[in-house]
Amino acid sequence: MSRYDLALIGFGGVNRALAELVFQRGDSLAEELGFALRVVAITDLRAGSLVDTDGIDLAPLLAAEPGELDFAGLPGGSTDPRNEWVIRHVPSDVVVEATFTNPADGEPALSHVRWALESGKHVCTTNKGPVALAGQALKALAAEHGVSFEFEGSVLSGTPVLRTAQSLFGGLEITGVEGIMNGTSNYVLGRIEEGVDLPAAIAEAQELGYAEADPTADIEGHDVQLKVMILANEVLGADLRREDIFCEGISTITPDEVRDAASKGLRWKLVGSATRNEDGSVDARVAPLALPSHHPLAGISGPVNAVSFHTDLLGTVTVSGPGAGRIETAYALLSDIIAIHQRHTSATRRVLQETHLV
Amino acid sequence: MSRYDLALIGFGGVNRALAELVFQRGDSLAEELGFALRVVAITDLRAGSLVDTDGIDLAPLLAAEPGELDFAGLPGGSTDPRNEWVIRHVPSDVVVEATFTNPADGEPALSHVRWALESGKHVCTTNKGPVALAGQALKALAAEHGVSFEFEGSVLSGTPVLRTAQSLFGGLEITGVEGIMNGTSNYVLGRIEEGVDLPAAIAEAQELGYAEADPTADIEGHDVQLKVMILANEVLGADLRREDIFCEGISTITPDEVRDAASKGLRWKLVGSATRNEDGSVDARVAPLALPSHHPLAGISGPVNAVSFHTDLLGTVTVSGPGAGRIETAYALLSDIIAIHQRHTSATRRVLQETHLV
Repeated sequence: MSRYDLALIGFGGVNRALAELVFQRGDSLAEELGFALRVVAITDLRAGSLVDTDGIDLAPLLAAEPGELDFAGLPGGSTDPRNEWVIRHVPSDVVVEATFTNPADGEPALSHVRWALESGKHVCTTNKGPVALAGQALKALAAEHGVSFEFEGSVLSGTPVLRTAQSLFGGLEITGVEGIMNGTSNYVLGRIEEGVDLPAAIAEAQELGYAEADPTADIEGHDVQLKVMILANEVLGADLRREDIFCEGISTITPDEVRDAASKGLRWKLVGSATRNEDGSVDARVAPLALPSHHPLAGISGPVNAVSFHTDLLGTVTVSGPGAGRIETAYALLSDIIAIHQRHTSATRRVLQETHLV
Repeated sequence: MSRYDLALIGFGGVNRALAELVFQRGDSLAEELGFALRVVAITDLRAGSLVDTDGIDLAPLLAAEPGELDFAGLPGGSTDPRNEWVIRHVPSDVVVEATFTNPADGEPALSHVRWALESGKHVCTTNKGPVALAGQALKALAAEHGVSFEFEGSVLSGTPVLRTAQSLFGGLEITGVEGIMNGTSNYVLGRIEEGVDLPAAIAEAQELGYAEADPTADIEGHDVQLKVMILANEVLGADLRREDIFCEGISTITPDEVRDAASKGLRWKLVGSATRNEDGSVDARVAPLALPSHHPLAGISGPVNAVSFHTDLLGTVTVSGPGAGRIETAYALLSDIIAIHQRHTSATRRVLQETHLV
């Protein structure tokens, strides 16, 4: 049976949830999927780095409170995250990047991904920064080194949005995408419909764990802007930069506007969209829209997210599901590893075909 | 480049739309997908049969009005559909079954599928009958003969419902499915909400082409019952018969009930569902339900259909899209052929691995 050795870069909620999956379900996953998973390195800004090329014992790490982890006292541990050294030099098959998203230049995640691909290691990530800002360059770098770069979790956590477009729409032309891709703003709009004002609705979203301490990126649309960029570039083959994407959030919508629309059967939603024009160019934008009730995104409520694909032969197909959550996002990483496994074994076959062995 | 020779069984709307795709887009599909398609045989209850092992010239067939087709006067043509002979003895790679659905015993489609699989030919079908009544047996027969049996179009036309569960949910446990799987009844319920009575709403659905001349199977839930059977057996690994699935349609719901619910924010929907119990058994049913507005199926309106998957790691993921339509259903067949191509080439690889050539 194949086995993939993982290097986890960042040990916050998502990679910790992935480690839990490996620890709790590794055997049953191996039986189902045909490959085993082992964690050989972990780095974290606060906890330091931990390396064991025979496989890290995850039990004590998962038993500790997240804030209390300190790798320095453990065999193979260090207070220094040593990211570049771990990524480049510790033998691993897949580097799993789950540090924080930096929308300005994607760093340090962008460097983490580059180092891994240059070292001939597959990468999977949930980090929007490197994918949105350098997705095409990183895919080219991966191809050059014969490895995969996977990022299902960068849009709608583990809900299979990118992979639906990549693997289930063969023979279709996708002419546009639009989605509700931020749970906080969607929850807030729903609560405003119900009579709560904006600051109170944001406070509720924070209490429920949907919104960050600083909800600006959620409320002003910047989080959705990165996801639209990823969809436009990945699904429509565009090459957009952030400044190409008009972005308006929900802070300027008044409660009166929301409730007035609701009384007419319209629902305000923060919609990110990208459309291919006749000349092949792609326009993308983020803006609040008052959607009629029959619109496929009108019924997407609360923290649920959704992406609609507009296609030539099938019309509109919509995938909805969780947009966030640590387990849900960790599942995205697992689905990436499954895709790497499938592509890697297919590649072996293609080489054989090209060398006339089959 | 690979090429697949197709035998089309039934030449109604769906297989005719598939022939149009092959005729109009064959070259661009081949470039994208890496395989060519050729139609070598067509059979039809009214038009007879037509065989040309060098590839049938589709242009004159597609130029004729559907009702006027008569294969008897053409070279290789006959007034007799000769289904068994064509399926068993005309050399083809894929038999595409798209005759009418018979919910009682699945015939004659069930025999068509059996003959093809026994002859070592792949089968794809949009026909609910054989899949619902004998899906597991036919899959076993296909495996025995080293071929594939694909049926994405038996549920929600080309909307990738079965294939999402089969290929994008690796590592997940699916605990239940529920869906709106009949466009006619969903359209009718929506119109009743808007004040139209049941007979008038059915007449409208017929005019719009959603409902059959005899709308009983749509309105009484029998169509959904077959689809629930397919989902329960295929996605949850059940082995249910039709009589195991409670079935209530929408004819007993009164307009007052629908509008009263709507005034409270509830929407009546005809829901088909299947749930895995603690002991591994599966319960399935079809019944109208008044759904709260935050339910993932509440916003599915008009002829749009949807299926929600309840999972352990991802919570609920919903796929919505067209539930019918000739092009949309023909696309399901194309997606089946793509899956056959991918599986067939993967199988070649596995054989090589097992014989230690890789």
